This record gives sequence, C-alpha cells and structure tokens, in this order.
Amino acid sequence: MDFAPDTTTTEITERVHEFLHERVIPAEPVLDEQLAATPHEWGFRPVVQDLQAQARAEGLWNLFLPDGPAAGASSGTRRGAGLTTLQYAAVAELTGWSPRLAPVAFNCAAPDTGNMELLAHFGTPEQQERWLDPLLDARIRSAFCMTEPDVASSDASQITTRIRRDGDDYVISGRKWFATGAMNPDAALLIVMGKTDPDGPRHRQQSMVLVGRDTPGVTVVRPLSVFGYDDRDHGGHAEVVFDDVRVPATNLLGGEGEGFAIAQARLGPGRIHHCMRGLGMAERALSLVRERARTRSAFGGPLAEKGVVREWVAESRIELEALRLLVLKTAWLMDTVGNREAMTEIQAIKIAVPRAVQRILDRAMQVFGAAGVSADQPLAEMFAGARALRLADGPDEVHLASLGRAELRRP
Amino acid sequence: MDFAPDTTTTEITERVHEFLHERVIPAEPVLDEQLAATPHEWGFRPVVQDLQAQARAEGLWNLFLPDGPAAGASSGTRRGAGLTTLQYAAVAELTGWSPRLAPVAFNCAAPDTGNMELLAHFGTPEQQERWLDPLLDARIRSAFCMTEPDVASSDASQITTRIRRDGDDYVISGRKWFATGAMNPDAALLIVMGKTDPDGPRHRQQSMVLVGRDTPGVTVVRPLSVFGYDDRDHGGHAEVVFDDVRVPATNLLGGEGEGFAIAQARLGPGRIHHCMRGLGMAERALSLVRERARTRSAFGGPLAEKGVVREWVAESRIELEALRLLVLKTAWLMDTVGNREAMTEIQAIKIAVPRAVQRILDRAMQVFGAAGVSADQPLAEMFAGARALRLADGPDEVHLASLGRAELRRP
Amino acid sequence: MDFAPDTTTTEITERVHEFLHERVIPAEPVLDEQLAATPHEWGFRPVVQDLQAQARAEGLWNLFLPDGPAAGASSGTRRGAGLTTLQYAAVAELTGWSPRLAPVAFNCAAPDTGNMELLAHFGTPEQQERWLDPLLDARIRSAFCMTEPDVASSDASQITTRIRRDGDDYVISGRKWFATGAMNPDAALLIVMGKTDPDGPRHRQQSMVLVGRDTPGVTVVRPLSVFGYDDRDHGGHAEVVFDDVRVPATNLLGGEGEGFAIAQARLGPGRIHHCMRGLGMAERALSLVRERARTRSAFGGPLAEKGVVREWVAESRIELEALRLLVLKTAWLMDTVGNREAMTEIQAIKIAVPRAVQRILDRAMQVFGAAGVSADQPLAEMFAGARALRLADGPDEVHLASLGRAELRRP
Amino acid sequence: MDFAPDTTTTEITERVHEFLHERVIPAEPVLDEQLAATPHEWGFRPVVQDLQAQARAEGLWNLFLPDGPAAGASSGTRRGAGLTTLQYAAVAELTGWSPRLAPVAFNCAAPDTGNMELLAHFGTPEQQERWLDPLLDARIRSAFCMTEPDVASSDASQITTRIRRDGDDYVISGRKWFATGAMNPDAALLIVMGKTDPDGPRHRQQSMVLVGRDTPGVTVVRPLSVFGYDDRDHGGHAEVVFDDVRVPATNLLGGEGEGFAIAQARLGPGRIHHCMRGLGMAERALSLVRERARTRSAFGGPLAEKGVVREWVAESRIELEALRLLVLKTAWLMDTVGNREAMTEIQAIKIAVPRAVQRILDRAMQVFGAAGVSADQPLAEMFAGARALRLADGPDEVHLASLGRAELRRP
Repeated sequence: MDFAPDTTTTEITERVHEFLHERVIPAEPVLDEQLAATPHEWGFRPVVQDLQAQARAEGLWNLFLPDGPAAGASSGTRRGAGLTTLQYAAVAELTGWSPRLAPVAFNCAAPDTGNMELLAHFGTPEQQERWLDPLLDARIRSAFCMTEPDVASSDASQITTRIRRDGDDYVISGRKWFATGAMNPDAALLIVMGKTDPDGPRHRQQSMVLVGRDTPGVTVVRPLSVFGYDDRDHGGHAEVVFDDVRVPATNLLGGEGEGFAIAQARLGPGRIHHCMRGLGMAERALSLVRERARTRSAFGGPLAEKGVVREWVAESRIELEALRLLVLKTAWLMDTVGNREAMTEIQAIKIAVPRAVQRILDRAMQVFGAAGVSADQPLAEMFAGARALRLADGPDEVHLASLGRAELRRP
Repeated sequence: MDFAPDTTTTEITERVHEFLHERVIPAEPVLDEQLAATPHEWGFRPVVQDLQAQARAEGLWNLFLPDGPAAGASSGTRRGAGLTTLQYAAVAELTGWSPRLAPVAFNCAAPDTGNMELLAHFGTPEQQERWLDPLLDARIRSAFCMTEPDVASSDASQITTRIRRDGDDYVISGRKWFATGAMNPDAALLIVMGKTDPDGPRHRQQSMVLVGRDTPGVTVVRPLSVFGYDDRDHGGHAEVVFDDVRVPATNLLGGEGEGFAIAQARLGPGRIHHCMRGLGMAERALSLVRERARTRSAFGGPLAEKGVVREWVAESRIELEALRLLVLKTAWLMDTVGNREAMTEIQAIKIAVPRAVQRILDRAMQVFGAAGVSADQPLAEMFAGARALRLADGPDEVHLASLGRAELRRP
Repeated sequence: MDFAPDTTTTEITERVHEFLHERVIPAEPVLDEQLAATPHEWGFRPVVQDLQAQARAEGLWNLFLPDGPAAGASSGTRRGAGLTTLQYAAVAELTGWSPRLAPVAFNCAAPDTGNMELLAHFGTPEQQERWLDPLLDARIRSAFCMTEPDVASSDASQITTRIRRDGDDYVISGRKWFATGAMNPDAALLIVMGKTDPDGPRHRQQSMVLVGRDTPGVTVVRPLSVFGYDDRDHGGHAEVVFDDVRVPATNLLGGEGEGFAIAQARLGPGRIHHCMRGLGMAERALSLVRERARTRSAFGGPLAEKGVVREWVAESRIELEALRLLVLKTAWLMDTVGNREAMTEIQAIKIAVPRAVQRILDRAMQVFGAAGVSADQPLAEMFAGARALRLADGPDEVHLASLGRAELRRP
Repeated sequence: MDFAPDTTTTEITERVHEFLHERVIPAEPVLDEQLAATPHEWGFRPVVQDLQAQARAEGLWNLFLPDGPAAGASSGTRRGAGLTTLQYAAVAELTGWSPRLAPVAFNCAAPDTGNMELLAHFGTPEQQERWLDPLLDARIRSAFCMTEPDVASSDASQITTRIRRDGDDYVISGRKWFATGAMNPDAALLIVMGKTDPDGPRHRQQSMVLVGRDTPGVTVVRPLSVFGYDDRDHGGHAEVVFDDVRVPATNLLGGEGEGFAIAQARLGPGRIHHCMRGLGMAERALSLVRERARTRSAFGGPLAEKGVVREWVAESRIELEALRLLVLKTAWLMDTVGNREAMTEIQAIKIAVPRAVQRILDRAMQVFGAAGVSADQPLAEMFAGARALRLADGPDEVHLASLGRAELRRP
C-alpha cells in the first residue's frame, strides 16, 4: 500500500493547479459580466472559448479520456490524454474549485465527458468520426436524454420512451427531461435511451440511439431550474419531446438491448468525476471559510477563535480526507479490477460524497452569513449542484438499498 | 394545561383554511404566468391585488396585529384583528402553505408586519398616520434596513451606519443589504438602524429612523439573490446605500439609543410568524409527499411502501408535532408573561424550527427526484427560504451560544 | 390553549420535588453502600423500604393510578391518587431524577405500575383482591412476561408460548426473557402472554394469564444484563421457562383472545411514564453538567465558557422543552379522547424521547470525561436505561414504520 | 498510489485470521465460563495463557512492536516482529473482532503495548531488562497512570501529581484513576506521569517514572467501571494513590521535563491500534448483523428485506471503508514522514473512528433487540469500549478544537 501520488499525477496536477489559479478563478467575474450582458442566451460565453484555447495550447485538454483501441479507431491517433482513472481523479478535484469554468476549460465537463466515453467505447468508426471528433474538439456539445418526468427513471424498467425499428430506421417517441446542456443550441448530439423491446428481460429492453438535435420531431420544450439556477452559462437542463423522430438504424449505439449495460458503464467514471469535483468544491469552500474566519469578527474576536467554527472546519477536514481516499481507491479499483468489481465502492462514493459536500457547504454558508446564500459567493450555487447530485443517476436511497442488499448477502 | 385551541382560533383558522385552498393555492400558477410575462418587474403582480381584495372583503386582513392603545391612537378605531399571538400563530402556519401568496393576500407578510408592529408600538401619531395607515391599507410597502455587508450584523455593536443629528435633522450614511422588499418601487418606507452614539454603552448606541424611499441620497444599488431566487414577486432583497440622507428629527422611531431595544422587540412576534410559516411549508411538503408516494412506483411498488419513505414521513411528523407545540407555547408565553420572560423559548424556536423545516424539505425533494429541485414543485424555493432563515436575525450559532450561556447560569 | 399547569399539578409536584431532593437523592449513596454489602441479593434494599414508609406517610403513594370503578371494586375505597395522566406525567418526570430510588419510593415503578393498571382495568374482584391489593401495598412485586428470546416479539403473531385450556385449568409452556423484576423473590406475580388460539385472527390469538411465581413448572433460569448492569437493586431482568405450568382458568386476565388488546392498553400510560422519567433523567444530567461546567477548567477557562459545551446544553434544552410538550400533549389526549385517538402521539414519543435522552446523556458523559462513564456519576447507568428503552415494547423502527404508514394514508 | 496490501501484510493477516477464527472466537465462551467460576479475581484466566502459548508457538507474538536499535539493545536479539505500522494495522483490525481475547493472545493488548513501546524507545538498557523483557514475555503486565480524578487531564498543565527529586530518589505523591489493568496483581509496573517542575514551561513540567507495584506508598484504592463493566478479565481500571512513593532516580523514563513529549509519542501508534481494533469490532458487529438479518423474521419477512436494515448496513459499510483508508493512510504517514507530520490525520482518526464504531454498534444492537444490549452478544460491551475511547487521551472535542485551529491557520 502506498498513498503517494505517482509522478504523472504530481506533474499534471501542478500544471492544472497553476492554470486554475492563474487563469480560471480570475475569469469567474468575467463570466459573471458576460452573463449579465447576455441574459437570454444559453451556452458558452466568450470567456470559455478563451480559456479553452489557452488550455488546449498548454496540452490540458480531454484529460478525462484514457487511451484505448476504440478511442483511436477512426483516426489512428491517440485521442485521450493517457491518464488512468486514478490519475485523472486528482485533476477532476481541482476542476471542482471553479465548477462553472474549469471543467469546460479543459473540455472535461459533463455530460460531454460521459458521452465521449460512450462513443469511444461503443461507437462505430463512423459514429466516432461524426460525433466524437467534434466533441473532442469542442466544436459541438451534447446531451444525454435518460430521465423522464413521468416515471421513477432510476428504475430502468419504467422507461416509457419507445425506439421502434422501422425498416432501416429507428423511430423514437417519448418525453425526457433534465437533459443537461440541451438548451444550448450547440448541443448537436442527443444520446437517447428508450425501449426497443418492452417485453424483453428487465435489463435487455433498453437501447441507446444517437439523435441529431435538428432531426425533425425533436422539440426542446423548456428549461428546468435547479433551486433558482437555470445554469444557462453551459446549456441548462431541458425538457425534450421526441415525436416520431426518425434516425437511420446505424445511429444505434452498441447493440439492441444493450442500453442498460451502456448506461451502467457510463456511470463508473462519471461518479469518480462528480465526486472528485464535489470534493474540490468543498475544498474551495473551506479555503473561503479560512479567509473569512480570520478576517471577520463578531462578539469580541475573529470567527476563527469561535469553538463552533473550529469544530466545523475540523469536521469538514476529516470528512474530506476520508472520502477522498475512498474515491481514489474506487478509481484505483476501476483501473485495476474493473468497474464490476468496484461496484460496492462506486455506490458508496455516489452516496457518501455529495451529501458530505452539501454538509460542508452548508456550514460554509453559515460562516458567511447572508453573503453565503447570495451570488456574491459561489457557495449557494455549489450547494445546489451538490444537492442535485444526490438525485442524479437515481436517488441515493436506490443505491443504499442495493449496497445494503449486497452487504447482507456477503457470507 | 389544555392543548385544545380556543373557539376564536378554531373559527379563524377554518376561514383561513378555506380561503387558502379555494383561492390562494389555485392562484399559484396564475402568479407563475404573470411573473413569466413580466420578467423585469419587482413587486406584486395583479393576482396579489385580487387576492387582497377578496381577503379584505372577508375580513381576513391584518390578522397579525393585536389591538392596543398605540395601534388605535391616530384614528380612534381598532386597527388590528384582535388576535392574540397564540391565536394568530395558527393562522401564520396556514399562510406558510403558499409562502409567495398567502401572507401577502392577508397583508400579513414580512417585513411589513414587523414594520407595522414597530409603528404601532413606538410610532408617534404623526408617524402612524403617515406610514402605518397606508401599510395597513396595503397602499405602500416597506423595508427594514438592518444588516450590513461589511460587518457581522448580528453583533449590533459592529453596525457602521451613522445617524448624526444636525439641527432639526438626522443625517444618515451607510450601506445596508438584504433589505427584503426594497427592490419594490412601492416600498415607500425604509426603517434604518444606525448609530447615533457610537461611544455609548454597547446596547444604547443604536437608533432607528424612518426614511422615505425617495429621499435624496438613498440609492437602491442592486438586487441580491438567495440560492438563485431573486424573489422579485414581492420585492427581492436589495443593497441600499445611504449617502448623507437627511430626514427631519421627527422621523426618529422611539428615542435615541433605543434602536437595539426596538430591534429586539421586533424579533419576538417575527419569530413566531417565521416559525409557524415554516411549519406550514413543511406541512405542505408532507402533503405533497403523501400524494407522490401513493402514486409513484419504483422497483416493484409505490414509494409509500418503501421503508425509507415511511421512516422519513414518520420522522417529519414527529418533528412537526413537537416543534409546533414549542412555538405555540412560546406565543402563549409572549401573551401571558411577555417577550422578556419568553427569551429562552424565542431563541429555541429560532434555532430549532428552520433547520427542521430544511430537513423535512430536503427529504421531500428526495422523494420527488429531479422534480423536487425544479420549479415544478414549491420545495426547492421553500428550502431556500428555510435555509436563509437560519441566518436571518443572526446565525443560529449566536443564539445557541446565548441560550447555552443562560442555561449554564441556571442554578 | 393553556400551557400553565393546574393547581393540582403544581401542588403535587412541589411536594414530590421536596421529597426527591430532601430524601431520595441523599439516599442514593446509602443504596450504593447497601448494594455493596449484599452483592448477591436481588430486590429492594432496606433504604427502599424506609423511603416507601416515608412517602406513604406523606400521601405520596400510588400516584400513577387514576381512580375508577374497577379500581375501587373490591375494597370500596379509592385506590389511586386521583391524578389524571397529564397530572401524573409531571410527577413521573421528577422520579426520573433518581431512577433507582424515586419510582419505587412512591410505589410507581415499572413493571408493577403497568401490571397494577391491568389488574385495575381488567381484573376480576378476586384477582384484584389477591394480586392488586398487595401490589398497591408494596407487599409483593410482579413481572410481565412478554418478550421471547427466539422470535421478534414486537410482532405479536410470532409469540410461541402456548396457553392451552385443559378442563378448568390453563397449561402454559414457553420461554420468556427480559422479564424485568423477575429475579426478585418477592415478585410473586407473573403476568404471562401466550397464544390460546394460534390459528385465530392475527390479533386474537393471544391471551394473558396470571401465574404465581411458585407454581410448579416455573423456572427462573438466569439474569440478563443491560450493558454491564444487572439491575439487581430492584430485581433485574430474568429468563423464565414455563414448563407445563398449570393455573386455574380463573387466572385468565380479561377474555381469551384479548391478550393483544390488553398489551396495547398497557402501553399507553407506560410510555408516558417512561418518557417523562427519561426527561427527568436528562434534566438531572443537565443539572450535573451545569455544576461541572462551572467548576471544571481546561485549557484556560471553565468548561462553561467553551463554545461547544454551550452549544450542547443549548441543544439539550431545546430538545427537552419540545419533547416534554409532546409527551404532555399525548397525556392530555389520553385523558380527553383516549389512547386510540392518541396513537400517533404515543408512537411519536416512544420513538423521539429515549433517543433524545440518550443523546443528551451522551453529551453529558463527554463533559464529565472518564467520570461520566463510571459509576461515580449516574450518567452511564441512565444511558443504558435510555438505550434499552429504544428496544422496549418493540424497536423504534417498528413504530416508525407504523407511524409512517399511517401518515402516508392521511388524505 | 497503490491500494493493494503488500505480501507481508497479506501473509500475516491470513495467519492471524485463521488463528482468530479457529482458536480465539471459539474460546470466547470458555472465557465466560472461567469468569463465572472466579467472580472475584482480576486478571487473565487460564484460557488466555493457553491462547498465548499457541500464538507464541506460531510466531504470532508481539506483532505490534517494530524492530529498532533500542528494542534490541539489551539482548542483542530482535524483539519486535518487524512489521511496519501500516502492516501491523491490518493485524490490529483483526484482533478487534474479539477484543477481550485476541489482543492479549498475541501479547498486543493495551496498555502493555504502549508501555512496551515507551520502554523500547526511551528506556535505558537496565530499564528494558527489568521491565521490557518480562512484558515481551508476558510474565508481567503493566499500567499507565496518567489521568487524575480532580482535573481535566487532557490539559497536561493541570496534572497535580508531584514527582520530587530527593537525593538519589524521586518521591511521588498524587492520585490517578482509570489506570487500566492496574487491578491485576500481575501488573508489576506502573508508569506514572507527574510534575517535576511545576513552574517550568507548560510542556516541560512533566516527567515519567517507572514505579513497581509493590513499592511502599502505592495503594490501589478501588476499581472503576465503564457502563457497568468492571473488565476484571484483564485487570480492570483502578484508582491508585501514590503517597510519598520513593523510587531510585534511575527509574526516570527519558529525561526530566520530557513527560509530555513521551506521552505524545505514545499516542500515535496507540491510536492506530485503537482505531483499527474499533473497525474490527464494527466488522464483527456487521457480520453478526448479516447472520441475524438473514435468519430473523418480523412482520412478514426476514429483517434482511427491511429497507431500514439495508440502509443501516449500507451506511455502516460506507463508513468502515472510508475510515479504514484514513487510518491506514495515517499509519503510512507515520511510517514514511513520522508522527509529527501525521498530526492532522492522527487527530482525525482519534475523533472519527470511535464515534463511527459506536454508531455502527448502536445500529447493530437495534437489529438484535433485547439480546443486543445483553451479554449474550458482544455488542453492548464493545459499545462501552468504543464510547470510552471518545474520552481516552482526552475528549474528542479537545482534538477537534486543535485540528480546527490548525486548519484555520493553513494558508
């Protein structure tokens, strides 16, 4: 057992750390200004493109994507940055310090990352050429259409969207929501999960198809907000109706009936990313708290000398240290024995990290008083993000039940 | 000891309950439509005025205000509805079911209620005629300018706003924020807390003055948001700069040096109202959860049959029943022995209720999945409100420390 | 609504309070000495009899028992003290300050109280004369044999003890445990729950019979401990085997098939008593903490000035005030509308109070350091008692599930 | 970073695991019988000596002790087993499965381990020969006399025990308590902390001396219990009075004024051991819960199918996995950069692990019902041990405050 990061990790995190503090965090107020000047747009503002150009020039690009045969299939060249899941995890944490800017600056933002992974792993060369390459180039963005408003979508057997084979086409009908990024007109690709075989075995009913945003029958109905945030800086969260949307059969991702398995495959790395970004948000919050507690006084002394504030930061530090190790171990398991063997840990971090981050952010807001819930600090928006993560990919309780069931089956 | 509500309470809550369910809750989507149609306005939309007219016609008006000599001074007639704090508490809970509409429908919304109480208790006949009467008539609104961005305002000794006597005038200089309602152009009255005697005894340095919104030197700088919500439907939360604002000395509320005492007096009833509304929000949430849990299924059965959902609603019910009693007892103490003797309880409910409501709303959001954090359900916005209450009037920790100190002094 | 205690309550609690502080608490070290001198005995030590004599002389006797027709049937005189459940609740809280001595001093200790209630409500005149009168006189004690080691006894349908009718007798076979008090040789009466009709409707299978301790076939097998406490001062907790124990059919309590209903009836008042005593234990703990925090110093000042200690006592005070009101309201409901209508509240207090008391005691132990977990302070033993209450009458989770189910059924 | 245990760890834990399950756990009922047969003795029963003989024969002996120059000084041979802190940590976890027997079987039980470490690190060859060798041989036992009844002993500046130099002797006067193991007549060595220089710098006032149990003036006053447990199987917890106890000056451990530093040095490995044993206790509890939940039914199905039980075991699994990693990383830091650099982590695990173990044991007791709090299951006794750990070496709050202060000082 060795808890020291390897040299690749040390080197890449130093570079990302520098980029974060020299370029990304100073760009946050620029984004706010550009957002205020363009209140009705959905998608990236110029500051993002600037950061992307710089990051790309420095080779800090697509760091999330491991290399692999599929990833290089269509072009014969390496696409990913060659980092392991464990190595990228440390990078992902740093991007959490500035969740609106850092992930997109490095072209490492959800949901594109997950979608690119799917295309790299399961896409045909043609699919990769058409969708993966422009995504890796940040020329387009994408959305993942899984959740439906009318059913508990964490239970995949309840999905109602239909994908019917009709000659050389698939015809898609259904209603999806919380398709993150889909308000962005640049989100050219929608990956849609639906049922091709509603009467098949429970986990073989579903398939995934690639749908161009401009395909007839696709309607982006409305944006949804998370708490009061519409997240229009990156493309929001959309409700999308598919009304007899017809795509060629070659747009199927993987095989028929593999939709559930593909969705599961997507989750593993995504959770590492989400969790590490969450820890990064919490570290940023703690950093803000430290500064605040040293400089703000009340009732006779700086907040840093209040027993309760000390206890909060101590509790936060303990939680962060323990949970980071758990996420890193999960990443290591994924790299060494694979996602299936890491199932307990993948569920564990999905449950434990977002709520801990929420708790840490809650304490941080309390230290900041009214400023903490306002837009003058990033805390409340981070809180909303962490809170939403407890529902993303299914509510924690589904995973707790599954983890508990597995534990109770152990000999 | 008798836990049965008296007949006045029973009668008034029945009427308010009916009004709430027949008129207010059905008006919620109307408000949403009117807000969507007027995205740049701050203040009431027409649906509010409609509800106010109906409520007034039914005598459900200014229910929060007890009668008293001061209250009737200028007009010779009863102004308040004659309810005790305890009796009104039951009404306040019901208004929490629809926090954007019900309190304003009955002219019982913060911060006007607290401001009207101050004018009724401490105002001169002239002040009452000029400000209290139009507030009681809902012809104007008002704001309370206490919190400052640069200091821990829960520690009144840190207030930096200055109120200097200059001949027959007071001259006010300072910066306030989170002045709820002050973005509303109808908020004609600002009650401002500042220091008239910065070198006086700690709790005698502060005074309060009445400032017309259109007085030269008053600048409403910008709106502040709470978890992404700008609360423009009622007037938002503003940062306000007072730059040598000159008002006649007769605008002093109470005497010089009484600002802290007046602020304290304002808090007692306000906390009853806040807490009871919070319990009402939680009851609404539970009501939504019941409906959802009966009709939504996942993994083989309705949510209502999941052990975890059952436990959540049970825990929520227990917390609500216990805390409601504590708030009601506090109201009863205020009615019988006065705010000073009820200090422990007033602090206790301020601490215990908002966080319990936050917890209940958090569980409710979890039952609703993605819908829970969106604007399709009232939960996330209620959550933001409950969360902010943990900071309003000073963070909970200030009150915990004070309550703990008092407890440790008991023999 | 009126939160003031009535004059009866005020008067009786003053007398009990005085007795508690003048006689009972000073007797605690005497009990410790007598226990140390008689390490192998089970049952009351002389100090208990002394206190009982004094309490009886002062009319502080059998305060738990309301008057009623059944209660006076055999003797023509009033047996109970005439207090309502609500009035006695305040007394019960005071007895919690000294849980080993105060309840027994007033002849108000479980399980005798519950057993006396059963005899008063359901007993025939003959049963009352034989068992109730000596219990009311403290000439004998009793045990309640419900829980079985081999099944989840909170699910009454799982009870395996058989009560077979055989001519004019019932014959009992089964194994019970945690029969509190049954190690005491003076526990002359065992009330045993078993199945007379194993194939009947779920809640009509059970009956209760009165069994003299010396009936052939009754074997008290062994004592059980709670944490490391054997509770021998009052009679411990026994495992008891019933091996073809034959009693006359007239020993049936109530009718055949009424065992479950009778057990339920027993629970209501018992929970009020348990919960109020729990609150009394917590108040005693807080009182000890106050004294300790004022007199003990660490790292530069008394514990009373540490932020964390202040927060603990504040949290404890809040919990106590809210939960006391909930228990008192439950008692009031039982007095006014009956146990059935108070079901939600009875379950709520059973769940909420013991765990709050446990939490308060846990914090108190932390303030006391090593002394807190030792026998030099009453905290650890009280903690064990509160912890056990979370299992008594079925684990909390059974009640949470039931309460949640009922809540989810509400319209 | 590499989360795989090395081969030494794998090999030693396999052997310990086998010994644990084949010999130690089956010996638990034997210990109970031997304890019941000798209720008045303090110290090991024969079953312990049997296990020690077997463990020693298999080379599973003194595994806690790393090799080092000091350790081999007096005999020229290796004394320790040559395991690193990280390697031994995995062993310590396994010993937690049977806390009364496994640590002593391997001669790895507190407080002897810490005392042996002190002698190995700071003892002179003569001290090592006289005390360390027989301890390593399990011919004697030892106690650590630090905590005092009259002061907050976590604040070393408050220690009142005096160690005065008098010619070639030291003379010790003071009162200690919770000297674990000191009731055991075989505890031949008492290591006593006291002040040699009460007016010196805060952390240079204290020294440690080695005191033979039979030195005149040493009185073992009485045993202390922890939640009713007197822990007589290994030597209990004693109050010890030192009344002008005279020892030769060569009995000083380390130098004058080094008592505080030595005490701190003792804490690091001790916390790893305590925490890993705690995790082992929790794993044992989970293992018992799994068995129980599969075989016990209530209300229509096995406990394993209840949502709440599933959630409990899931939560327990998550906590265990995260905290184990944190303890292992702490051990790794101690091995690689030293205790001083690992201070944050050492404090973190001291705070986080015992309370998590307490929580897990609390849930486990709840699954077991009444059996859970009784001596029929090991849960309640383990709970008492975990609870006491939250006070050992100073209450958690002292460490939280220290950790928080350090965190707030970070840039």
